[in-house]
Amino acid sequence: MRVSNLFTKTSKNIPSGEIAKNAQLLIRAGYISKVMSGVYIYAPLGLRVLEKIKQIIREEMNSVGGQELIMSSIQKKETWNITGRWDDEVVDMWFKSKLKDGTDIGFAWSHEEAIIEMLKDFLASYKDLPINVYQFQTKFRNELRSKSGIMRGREFVMKDMYSCSINQKQHDQFYKDTIEAYNRVFERLGLKDDTYMTFASGGAFTQFSHEFQTICEAGEDTIYIHKGKNIAINEDVMDDENLGKLGVNRDELEKVKTAEVGNIFNFGTKKSEDTDFSFTNSDGKKQFVYFGSYGIGVTRLMGVIVEKFSDEKGLVWPENISPYKIYLLRIGGDEATSHAEKLYGELTDKGFEVLYDDRDIHPGQKFADSELLGMPYRVTVSDRMLENNQYELVERKNGQKSVLTHDELLAKLG
Amino acid sequence: MRVSNLFTKTSKNIPSGEIAKNAQLLIRAGYISKVMSGVYIYAPLGLRVLEKIKQIIREEMNSVGGQELIMSSIQKKETWNITGRWDDEVVDMWFKSKLKDGTDIGFAWSHEEAIIEMLKDFLASYKDLPINVYQFQTKFRNELRSKSGIMRGREFVMKDMYSCSINQKQHDQFYKDTIEAYNRVFERLGLKDDTYMTFASGGAFTQFSHEFQTICEAGEDTIYIHKGKNIAINEDVMDDENLGKLGVNRDELEKVKTAEVGNIFNFGTKKSEDTDFSFTNSDGKKQFVYFGSYGIGVTRLMGVIVEKFSDEKGLVWPENISPYKIYLLRIGGDEATSHAEKLYGELTDKGFEVLYDDRDIHPGQKFADSELLGMPYRVTVSDRMLENNQYELVERKNGQKSVLTHDELLAKLG
Repeated sequence: MRVSNLFTKTSKNIPSGEIAKNAQLLIRAGYISKVMSGVYIYAPLGLRVLEKIKQIIREEMNSVGGQELIMSSIQKKETWNITGRWDDEVVDMWFKSKLKDGTDIGFAWSHEEAIIEMLKDFLASYKDLPINVYQFQTKFRNELRSKSGIMRGREFVMKDMYSCSINQKQHDQFYKDTIEAYNRVFERLGLKDDTYMTFASGGAFTQFSHEFQTICEAGEDTIYIHKGKNIAINEDVMDDENLGKLGVNRDELEKVKTAEVGNIFNFGTKKSEDTDFSFTNSDGKKQFVYFGSYGIGVTRLMGVIVEKFSDEKGLVWPENISPYKIYLLRIGGDEATSHAEKLYGELTDKGFEVLYDDRDIHPGQKFADSELLGMPYRVTVSDRMLENNQYELVERKNGQKSVLTHDELLAKLG
Repeated sequence: MRVSNLFTKTSKNIPSGEIAKNAQLLIRAGYISKVMSGVYIYAPLGLRVLEKIKQIIREEMNSVGGQELIMSSIQKKETWNITGRWDDEVVDMWFKSKLKDGTDIGFAWSHEEAIIEMLKDFLASYKDLPINVYQFQTKFRNELRSKSGIMRGREFVMKDMYSCSINQKQHDQFYKDTIEAYNRVFERLGLKDDTYMTFASGGAFTQFSHEFQTICEAGEDTIYIHKGKNIAINEDVMDDENLGKLGVNRDELEKVKTAEVGNIFNFGTKKSEDTDFSFTNSDGKKQFVYFGSYGIGVTRLMGVIVEKFSDEKGLVWPENISPYKIYLLRIGGDEATSHAEKLYGELTDKGFEVLYDDRDIHPGQKFADSELLGMPYRVTVSDRMLENNQYELVERKNGQKSVLTHDELLAKLG
């Protein structure tokens, strides 16, 4: 991709009214564009990051046997009345509207009840289980305030997976497998060391629910981590009784600010009982489904990665979700230009994802943009270095510079 | 993929209240699930078809220089007030709701005004042009009636592309390139011969707009085609004056039922004047953008393909959008089973997409399901044929059978 062809532009100005660092940087770099608080457009660079994050999550959900589908955003009142969650007093973040004939509809803030309703059509016998399905879906939530950029959206993308199991054992195994899949996701995104499986409230069936919390100053949560045991407890459930249950002492814990990037709910058979979601077991008797729900905030994750890895110069992308691997930059006259063009062709032919700054602007602006945009590697072609048949390679995350020959450059880029 | 792992099931029953053949078949085959009229869930098989159609369109939009992004569904009143299209009297299909503070929001039925609003932030000079962007986006339209299955949704997926050009010449070239890209899309989907670029009303700047209409009994439109000239005219603008302009005689035309699968609008500078969408030209003067809008109904296309290619036995997918290429089926005892398992492994290892019917059910049910599900090739492994080291291959579209050796089978599947 040529920078001259990108319709987005970088900006030095902080967009007015935007206080979140993630959104400030992403807007300045042209990755996203703001529609209103909590509602953003993903421009080409932003969409590439988002799709790469989704693909990592997709691979890991597939690895535990998840089947991808896509639910609808428009939902029926009846779907949610069954659990009482259509009521605005119970769920205070609905966006609702009406069909022409006056029928109430809601725009999906969650798909738990909708998934169960749909799966009822397909689940009859124990032979149909297990069923594990997931989707990447836009959720709409009428948040009172939305000041955390893409970390808390009124419209945002979530991966939500649902498991239906035949018994406790199958259910527990999938729950455990999914925790491992989540750990692999966070590892691949470079967040593993700072992400804790956290005991939290909200367990409908079990004592606790499990949140995946990533240490992040801009996060809205506070948790207490136990580094030795690699567990954490949300401040909501932080009391002596619960500490006792987890076998930890208050003074071994460290208080940190975090962002909730994932959560998993072990409903046992509670949700199925509430919604009459059952099957006929091998004895011919009616049995309720063991149900689990597993979320990852996809757009929020992107925001957390920006918050954690960016520096005063701009964005810093982990290599496997960067929109491009290489920022190729040319300085100088005709020779540098023709050389850079050739290198651009060669690198893309070899399968590298290259953003090529082919603009005729001041080198300082190119360097500044390369840092703001945050690709992992910057390759500079300049008249001066070409005299020695060399290129400059700079790693974005640590600023490390090397001057390399053509072959050394290719070897280094791998 | 093993059929035993698919959570969806086939059904012989026509879902009640569903009169559209496309939805009836897709629901019976477990590709989609109905939420309400015009609102459907895409189950794993349906999602695979949808994603393959999107990928074909994506490649062709990229080939004309389109850059993919994703807009928001939540839109502001102000965005649409500028052209008067917020008004329910002007646009009668809005779904609207409110933020907590009472601010009006709408759920996007179109993105024309929203795209222009966003691009204003990036377009200053003639040097920034051309800009060509597109998205795959869910559209929400409050249709009074929605009885055509996935061919007319209240919630549906559309590809919408927008072009911003510096002058008439650049604009016309992109418009022409996009027509060719559209023709390639319809060719790859197997619809080229039955799809006509059709002169229709709705041209804001030009005399006509252009629709892409595919001959389809279930379509809601009527057009008159001229096979010799390969053009068509929508009945809405079918009068002697317009026939004269197109240089065709009424008696050379054939009346056909069609579905509108794409449309392109040449706004010239009209839309930009309405929205004050301008740039500074090379003389330093303000100039309005030449604007075009190019839609393809993605979910509708899937419905049209079902309507056109299916037969009394079920779905018939063109090979390049079929969820799987091969339906592998085993009949018989342990030997057929172990042989089929081995072949399944071999075919998937070689990169074939295989749906393997590993169920222990009556062969008649497997054959019926293979026909309902509509994969292009069915491969049968049976005890009887294994005696001669042979397999049966049946092509779904014409029922052609061949009995082949292992090597012949692989050669035939290509």
